[in-house]
Amino acid sequence: MDKKITVIKGDGIGPEIVTEAIKVLDAVAAKFGHSFEYTDILMGGCSIDACGVPLTDEAVATAKAADAVLLGAIGGNTSTSPWYKLAPNLRPEAGLLKIRKELGLFANLRPANLYDELKFACPLRSDIIEGGFDMMIMRELTGGLYFGERKTEEVDGVETAVDTLSYNENEIRRIAIKGFDIAMKRRKKVTSVDKANVLDSSRLWRKIVNEVAKDYPEVELEHMLVDNCAMQLVRDPKQFDVILTENMFGDILSDEAAMVSGSLGMLASASLNDTKFGLYEPSHGSAPDIAGQDKANPLATILSASMMLRYSFDMDKEADAIDNAVKQVLAEGYRTGDIMSEGMKQVGCKEMGSLVAERV
Amino acid sequence: MDKKITVIKGDGIGPEIVTEAIKVLDAVAAKFGHSFEYTDILMGGCSIDACGVPLTDEAVATAKAADAVLLGAIGGNTSTSPWYKLAPNLRPEAGLLKIRKELGLFANLRPANLYDELKFACPLRSDIIEGGFDMMIMRELTGGLYFGERKTEEVDGVETAVDTLSYNENEIRRIAIKGFDIAMKRRKKVTSVDKANVLDSSRLWRKIVNEVAKDYPEVELEHMLVDNCAMQLVRDPKQFDVILTENMFGDILSDEAAMVSGSLGMLASASLNDTKFGLYEPSHGSAPDIAGQDKANPLATILSASMMLRYSFDMDKEADAIDNAVKQVLAEGYRTGDIMSEGMKQVGCKEMGSLVAERV
Ligand SMILES: CC(C)[C@H](C(=O)O)[C@@H](O)C(=O)O
Ligand SMILES: CC(C)[C@H](C(=O)O)[C@@H](O)C(=O)O
Repeated sequence: MDKKITVIKGDGIGPEIVTEAIKVLDAVAAKFGHSFEYTDILMGGCSIDACGVPLTDEAVATAKAADAVLLGAIGGNTSTSPWYKLAPNLRPEAGLLKIRKELGLFANLRPANLYDELKFACPLRSDIIEGGFDMMIMRELTGGLYFGERKTEEVDGVETAVDTLSYNENEIRRIAIKGFDIAMKRRKKVTSVDKANVLDSSRLWRKIVNEVAKDYPEVELEHMLVDNCAMQLVRDPKQFDVILTENMFGDILSDEAAMVSGSLGMLASASLNDTKFGLYEPSHGSAPDIAGQDKANPLATILSASMMLRYSFDMDKEADAIDNAVKQVLAEGYRTGDIMSEGMKQVGCKEMGSLVAERV
Repeated sequence: MDKKITVIKGDGIGPEIVTEAIKVLDAVAAKFGHSFEYTDILMGGCSIDACGVPLTDEAVATAKAADAVLLGAIGGNTSTSPWYKLAPNLRPEAGLLKIRKELGLFANLRPANLYDELKFACPLRSDIIEGGFDMMIMRELTGGLYFGERKTEEVDGVETAVDTLSYNENEIRRIAIKGFDIAMKRRKKVTSVDKANVLDSSRLWRKIVNEVAKDYPEVELEHMLVDNCAMQLVRDPKQFDVILTENMFGDILSDEAAMVSGSLGMLASASLNDTKFGLYEPSHGSAPDIAGQDKANPLATILSASMMLRYSFDMDKEADAIDNAVKQVLAEGYRTGDIMSEGMKQVGCKEMGSLVAERV
C-alpha cells in the first residue's frame, strides 16, 4: 500500500525521536512491501519562529491531505523560552489545540500499561502491580472546557474570567461508541468517568453513555466519579480496561495513569476523527533540557507509529511487528537513560531506533 | 470558653463517628475548663427522609448561629438508595453544596500526610515515601464549575448541556491569601495549580496569585499545571507543602493525595469562611456498608474536631492534646479494621473514641 504521512517534528527532542520512528517505519515498508511518503510541516515553537504563528493554515491543509500525521513533541522551557511571553493563542500549545479542532480529532486514545522489564520504575508498591495492568484511556478531545467560549472582562469593576464546559449528545455519543468499540477488542469493560453529582454536562454524559451501552450487551459498563477515579488509579490500576471520559478529566487522569505506569518514555497516543485519519504522538513532552544530545527515548514515538499502522492503515501485522521488536529490544536489555537500571545496556536515541528497526 | 457547635451526624457511619468525636471534645472541655454546647441539625439522606429536602433553611440558620459545625458524613449507596432516584438538587450531596454556599465556606483545607505507623498502607514504593510527606491542599470551595450557571436544553434539536467555570479576582485573592497565610505557618512553599495553557479562569488565577505572592516575600511560589500535578503527587509527594487550587481541580487532587497517603480513615478537613467560622468533617464518605456495626474509624472525625479547636476557637493547646492522643493510641498499637495490620490490637469505633478521650 501507498500511504501519505504528514510529519511534525516539532521542538526539543521532537526531531530526534521522529527520525527514529521513521527509520522503523521504513523498515516496515521494506519488509511488507509498502511505500510511505513523508511531508514535513511546522507546528509549535519552530513554526512561531519561522511563520509567527504556531500552526499555519497551509500546514493544516497539508495535514488534511495526508492519510495520517506523526508528531514528535512541541514547546520549550515555559519559564525561559520567549514563546511563552506571547499571547496564549500564539503559544506552541495553541498549534496543538488548533490541529485537533481543524482535523476533528475527537477521540484520544492513551494506553497506560506496565512493561514487565520496567516494573522497577513503577511508583506503586509491588504487591499492587503484581500481574501488571493494561488500560486504555479514551479521552474526548475537541469539546468541553478546551473549546468552549471564554472571556475575561470587568464586571462592576471586578476582573472576571469565564470558561464554558459544553457537550451535546452527538459529541458524547460518537466518543462513547469509540470507547465501546475498543472495549470489544480488549477485555470488554468500560469505566465512564464524570462528575454527575455536580455537573449538568456529566449528567448528559452519563445518560448518553447508558444509551450507547445498550448496543454493546457484552461490554460491562460502570460509572465512576472523577475524584474517585483519581484515587482508584493509585489504589488498584488493574481494575481498569477502558476509561471513557471528557476532555479535561481525560487530560488529568491520563497523565496520572501514565505516571502510575512508571514509564512515560514508553507511552504512545492516537487522536482520531470519524474516518480512519489520525494524529499519533508520544504522551511525553519535548524535554528541551536534553534536546539534541542523542539521549531521548524514541520508543513512545515508535509505538505511536505502530498505532498509526493499526488504526489508520489497518496494518495489524505490521503494527505487531513493531510492538514485538520493541519488546525484544527491552528483553535483550537495551535501555535509554530514562529507563536505565542496573545490569542493562545503555544506548542513545539513534541506536535504540536502529535496534528496533533491525528487529522488525 | 463557651462555644456553640452545630452537629450534623448525617448518614451511614456518620452518627457513630461523630459520637466519638464528641466524646473526645467533652474530654477536652473537662480538662481545659471549656463548655461546648451541641445542637443537632439534619443534612443529607436523613433530612430528605424527614423533611423532603437534603438541608432546610432552618437548619442553615441554626448552623449560622453557632461558632462552628462538626459533620460526620452524608449520602448512601448510590446504586440502591432511593435518594439517588431524586432530582439532582434534592439528593444528599445537594445539602453539602448548599451549606458550603450559604455559610460562605470558600476555603477548604485538606491535609494529606503519612503516619509513620500506617506507612504499610501507602500504595507508593517505600523509597518514594522515605522520610514521609506532609501537604495541605487549599481548595477553593464556593466558585468555579460547582456554582456556575448550568443548563440542559435542545439546541437545533440536539440535547446540549452547559456548565460554567467562572472566577473573579476577589474570589481568587481571598483563597490565595488563605493559602499563603497557612504556608507561613508551615514550610513556606505554595504550589498553585491551574490549567493556564488552556483556561482564561486559570490565567486570571495565576495573575492574582502572583499579585498576592508579593505580600509574602518569604514564601516560595511555584505554578504547576493540573495534569502535571496529578503526576507529581504519585511521583514525589514530598515536594509539596501547600497546594493552592480551584474547586474542581481541588476535588480531584485532594482525593488523589488522600489515597496516596494510604489512610483515608485518618484524614480531616476544614471548610472556612472569612471569619473564624468553619465546618469540619472527615475526608472519607459515609460507608453505608459498615454503618451501625461499630466498625468505622472515628479518627478522621476526631482530627476534624481538633482542626475546629485550632482554626475556629484558637485553642491550639487543646488541639495539640487531641493530635497527640491520636498519635499515642496509634503508637500503642490500637487499630480499627480499615488500618489494621499484623501484631496490632483491633478495636471498634467506640473503643477507639474512648482510648483517644482517655489520653487527652
Ligand atoms: C499542551 C496541552 C494543551 C495538552 C492538553 O491539555 O490537552 C497536553 O497536556 C495534552 O494532554 O495533550
Ligand atoms: C459529594 C461531592 C459533591 C463533594 C465535592 O465534589 O465537593 C465531595 O466529593 C467532596 O470532595 O467534598
